[in-house]
Amino acid sequence: MKIARFKYKKELLWGAVEGNDIIALRNCPSRKIQKTSKKISRNKVKLLAPAVPSKIVCVGLNYKDHAAELKMKMPSEPIIFLKPPTSVIGHNCQIIYPPGVGRVDYEAELAVVIGRRAKSVSAGEVTKYILGYTCLNDVTARTLQAKDGQWTRAKSFDTFCPLGPWIETELKDKASLKISSYLNGELKQDSSTSEFIFSIEKIVSFISKIMTLLPQDVIATGTPAGVGPMKKGDSVEVEIDGIGRLVNYIR
Amino acid sequence: MKIARFKYKKELLWGAVEGNDIIALRNCPSRKIQKTSKKISRNKVKLLAPAVPSKIVCVGLNYKDHAAELKMKMPSEPIIFLKPPTSVIGHNCQIIYPPGVGRVDYEAELAVVIGRRAKSVSAGEVTKYILGYTCLNDVTARTLQAKDGQWTRAKSFDTFCPLGPWIETELKDKASLKISSYLNGELKQDSSTSEFIFSIEKIVSFISKIMTLLPQDVIATGTPAGVGPMKKGDSVEVEIDGIGRLVNYIR
Repeated sequence: MKIARFKYKKELLWGAVEGNDIIALRNCPSRKIQKTSKKISRNKVKLLAPAVPSKIVCVGLNYKDHAAELKMKMPSEPIIFLKPPTSVIGHNCQIIYPPGVGRVDYEAELAVVIGRRAKSVSAGEVTKYILGYTCLNDVTARTLQAKDGQWTRAKSFDTFCPLGPWIETELKDKASLKISSYLNGELKQDSSTSEFIFSIEKIVSFISKIMTLLPQDVIATGTPAGVGPMKKGDSVEVEIDGIGRLVNYIR
Repeated sequence: MKIARFKYKKELLWGAVEGNDIIALRNCPSRKIQKTSKKISRNKVKLLAPAVPSKIVCVGLNYKDHAAELKMKMPSEPIIFLKPPTSVIGHNCQIIYPPGVGRVDYEAELAVVIGRRAKSVSAGEVTKYILGYTCLNDVTARTLQAKDGQWTRAKSFDTFCPLGPWIETELKDKASLKISSYLNGELKQDSSTSEFIFSIEKIVSFISKIMTLLPQDVIATGTPAGVGPMKKGDSVEVEIDGIGRLVNYIR
């Protein structure tokens, strides 16, 4: 099922995407998913980021092809960092290019949305705690990332975490999903989650042993080879098979 | 005024600390501060962390004495990192020593609590956006910090952000406050905010130009010289003149 969060006539709602319609849900989907009888045409709503996370936990280097491209050794454990909730924007929204920061890059990522409170969960149990999967663009001010050494500033600007367009709750073949990014329609990243260094199960288990994960928390699973810079006026898209395509514009 | 958040007979309340009493407030203090007629004895309540932050933004190296101790060059701009909201605990609560992480250190810090939404605020305007000040212990798994390079994992474990005991809204002489930490009653850090590399005004302004700050967000202003390891069974205290003393125990 594809679950979207959206605005319709000033109301904030959750809904199940069915073709060109959205069926409104009774509750936030991290509780029981219950459809109402309210059906709205998709072109009448504004899609919002499909989660309101208390935290966004990202893995720094998780694709073999990206590690090779950067000539970096494969990490023995995931390297994590956080993006603030204020960086989140939804599908079709604008990424604001901060003044004077140098180069700003796209990074296509598969994101996990947590469904239930998870504390010290084993890899084998992880699936029970996941609500679903969506696309994430880990926008990064590359020049500042190199200057600071610590990655937080470079990845924390308002609008630097496009998320969406919706959550897919039943994603097949998670270990071999095609993941791509496009800049102004041109293919830039073209890889597969088969390049993962750490599986989704290992990543979520690892993080849950550090910090308690809460419903709607987001985990970004790293970006493949092919990252590159954007400029004002560009469109950027993250596409993942079985989920959809997240489109944003640089302003 | 000293503002505490506390639990009393299963209710979560905010209150003004007056001697041995707490006067309950009508609202969360980031709105207008209004006292009620409800007066409760302090020894009948459990103090909670005096903020429920959507994010905790920390400055990595902000005391000249600590930079000298680490033989590190003084940074030209603040280096920031985030701690997750799930790391927050209150006064008198237990810091849980995670298994197998190696050394875990205390770091006494002055914390700023934001009172109003702040986006791209100039240093001269910062004061209007601050609700008050409290003590923070930036607990750090030192061995993991060195191993990862990125500081996030080392600083993000549940219970690694003791905060409290309350917020002081009228702090005098912020540029020359005595700040200390004690391990099992023994003085370990003994410095002053006069050692700051970046002032509170510069730090808050700098961060507000990266990410929008929201009411109750917390900004940690760095730790002075004298950090060191803790072990299970220890008590650790952070004391700041004009605020008070934050006490925690290692379990």
